[in-house]
Amino acid sequence: MTYMAKPLSCDPPKLRGLSEKLILSHWENNYGGAVRRLNAITAQLAELDFARAAPGFVINGLKREELIATNSMILHELYFDGLGGDGISGGSIDEALKRDFGSVDRWRAEFIGTGKALRGGAGWVLLSYSHRDRRLMNQWAADHTHALAGGTPILALDMYEHSYQLDYGASAEGYVDAFMENVNWTNVARLLQAQAPGERASEFEVWRAIR
Amino acid sequence: MTYMAKPLSCDPPKLRGLSEKLILSHWENNYGGAVRRLNAITAQLAELDFARAAPGFVINGLKREELIATNSMILHELYFDGLGGDGISGGSIDEALKRDFGSVDRWRAEFIGTGKALRGGAGWVLLSYSHRDRRLMNQWAADHTHALAGGTPILALDMYEHSYQLDYGASAEGYVDAFMENVNWTNVARLLQAQAPGERASEFEVWRAIR
Amino acid sequence: MTYMAKPLSCDPPKLRGLSEKLILSHWENNYGGAVRRLNAITAQLAELDFARAAPGFVINGLKREELIATNSMILHELYFDGLGGDGISGGSIDEALKRDFGSVDRWRAEFIGTGKALRGGAGWVLLSYSHRDRRLMNQWAADHTHALAGGTPILALDMYEHSYQLDYGASAEGYVDAFMENVNWTNVARLLQAQAPGERASEFEVWRAIR
Amino acid sequence: MTYMAKPLSCDPPKLRGLSEKLILSHWENNYGGAVRRLNAITAQLAELDFARAAPGFVINGLKREELIATNSMILHELYFDGLGGDGISGGSIDEALKRDFGSVDRWRAEFIGTGKALRGGAGWVLLSYSHRDRRLMNQWAADHTHALAGGTPILALDMYEHSYQLDYGASAEGYVDAFMENVNWTNVARLLQAQAPGERASEFEVWRAIR
Repeated sequence: MTYMAKPLSCDPPKLRGLSEKLILSHWENNYGGAVRRLNAITAQLAELDFARAAPGFVINGLKREELIATNSMILHELYFDGLGGDGISGGSIDEALKRDFGSVDRWRAEFIGTGKALRGGAGWVLLSYSHRDRRLMNQWAADHTHALAGGTPILALDMYEHSYQLDYGASAEGYVDAFMENVNWTNVARLLQAQAPGERASEFEVWRAIR
Repeated sequence: MTYMAKPLSCDPPKLRGLSEKLILSHWENNYGGAVRRLNAITAQLAELDFARAAPGFVINGLKREELIATNSMILHELYFDGLGGDGISGGSIDEALKRDFGSVDRWRAEFIGTGKALRGGAGWVLLSYSHRDRRLMNQWAADHTHALAGGTPILALDMYEHSYQLDYGASAEGYVDAFMENVNWTNVARLLQAQAPGERASEFEVWRAIR
Repeated sequence: MTYMAKPLSCDPPKLRGLSEKLILSHWENNYGGAVRRLNAITAQLAELDFARAAPGFVINGLKREELIATNSMILHELYFDGLGGDGISGGSIDEALKRDFGSVDRWRAEFIGTGKALRGGAGWVLLSYSHRDRRLMNQWAADHTHALAGGTPILALDMYEHSYQLDYGASAEGYVDAFMENVNWTNVARLLQAQAPGERASEFEVWRAIR
Repeated sequence: MTYMAKPLSCDPPKLRGLSEKLILSHWENNYGGAVRRLNAITAQLAELDFARAAPGFVINGLKREELIATNSMILHELYFDGLGGDGISGGSIDEALKRDFGSVDRWRAEFIGTGKALRGGAGWVLLSYSHRDRRLMNQWAADHTHALAGGTPILALDMYEHSYQLDYGASAEGYVDAFMENVNWTNVARLLQAQAPGERASEFEVWRAIR
């Protein structure tokens, strides 16, 4: 298994409030680094004799690093795919946000507030579709390993300091505001439609039917 | 938003090597506790003024506990749904395991070895479908918060000590072996088919098409 | 460097509400296992070429496992040393608890409440002397890696489920109450006196003097 | 309990390879922010009714944030105290490093390699005195909560990205090298002497005597 890096989907010079230097460093070093590391980890894991020789601490060490690198790869791709828009949501996505958060403003306050709470540290805020309850939720993450089980993230706000220190120093607030102005809502709506088909019965609903 | 608990899907007296007392305590206290806690957390989060009054440390504290309880709920449901079978895989799921791990034996060694490596602590081993690369993988988790971003877990092995201490004491190995003999592969295959449609283009493939 | 296991300091049959089977399994498997694992990890780390050949993910994996095993060893020793008494505090330790928590009852409520909050998962509650501020505090830990930087723990309540499931199942509350009745306060007072000399100037005080 | 911030102990314009802007932002926002946050958390914890009304998830949330802020405060003070020197070790500290790591070069390779392994994420590398075994060790930390139980850290390398992104972008390697050139070894030796008195019997040795 070899993981391939995906080209940068957004056009850095067109982003407002996020410098080309920052975005390219983020993409090349942090995203690219995760993909390269994941391939090296995968190669080591393939050599392990899980049934006999491999000590538990070696398995725990490598499997944890595999999860970190895999999620870093996946979430960074989603992060960059979510940039390049005008930050103005509407249509089907607004309807979904109203349904699941009461209002778009409430969703926005939760999403932004959760991001700003992570300032000075590391983590992600993920707008995710939960298949269990067929609704959107804002998921908090303090590092790459945290994710909603079985959820489909459709918008990712990176709160690792490499996302903003070069441009904003410690002012994570300014960065979060800039991020929101560049959100590509067309992509978010497309992902909600394609990857999180709310019409499909959830497992929670299936048990009622099959029992 | 109120989360409802799902009835226990497997029939405890029919499980081999896992006592009814253990399963019922696990289901009532750990699964049930997670659902009850999640409802209390959700109510507190609904009261928070994310935009102004709520301190970052309160947001971080509650959102982390929400993630713990949500994943505990979701993964425990999957865990109990995965029990009650004869432990003998075959058909489409074996084909998928061969395709993605080289052989069913190799998958089995990885899954079991990762579980046993977690003995004496806490965590999960999840057989998950990764939508990014359209393949199955074994995901390691050291606590409820760890999950493959955007993945669909289809089999969950609980390695928290409440899963086995009552029956096995510190012998996590015996527990893992007993778990494997009770896996309901029919349910695993159904989930792979229904929730992880491998035919749908992944995001990674979409970018090739839309650019 | 080879780590040696320390004999069990308390006398299991004399403990009330904690079975000999539970204590011996805990000591042999969880404490003993940590020491044995730490020696194996230490041997692997000694072989690593940190300056050149070792990939970062291998260093991160092994150094994390080293921290887990080291703290597990140290905290388990403190846990067992803290058992075997009559649970009745007094004298110098009560004075210290009053000074730093307002009252012994308040300390007790915080310590016990923090322990019970960890039910169903993993972790520790540590009564620790903070050298920075020359005072006792109750420290929360969700796993072996969490500790107060530069602190001296003098009483350790193990909240991993291996500490109680055999005797109490999911009833962590009963376990915490039993633990409190067996605390060896003579040992706690001795440690406070010997290892946490409150008269020594803290770093925080030194800067005033040397500047 | 009110925590006071400690003035910056090193003189930023005299550091080589670390800009005044970076150091002052680090000190004011990350260190200062931790102290301010800790005071707010402490005030909330003082209001909690641990014995009755406080839900476990509120206790877990606040106690975790207290640990993060406390360790961030303590480790940042040690970090800044460790800067401002010429980076050249010698005397008693070199003897201790040789005794516990085989050679100063080996210690250096481990310490630097562990730091560089944390690039792109968060964490600390701590040279700590372990009272259990009366020796120095290099401790890895992936976030503020990780510390050697009962250890005394005497040199702290901050690997959070706020320590270097402003000056070095993603080049954590350049930052680690710059840090090493500014280490104030006089302070490290003083701490080893004052705070980690190796002559005092460890708990591990005490049990031999008292039994």
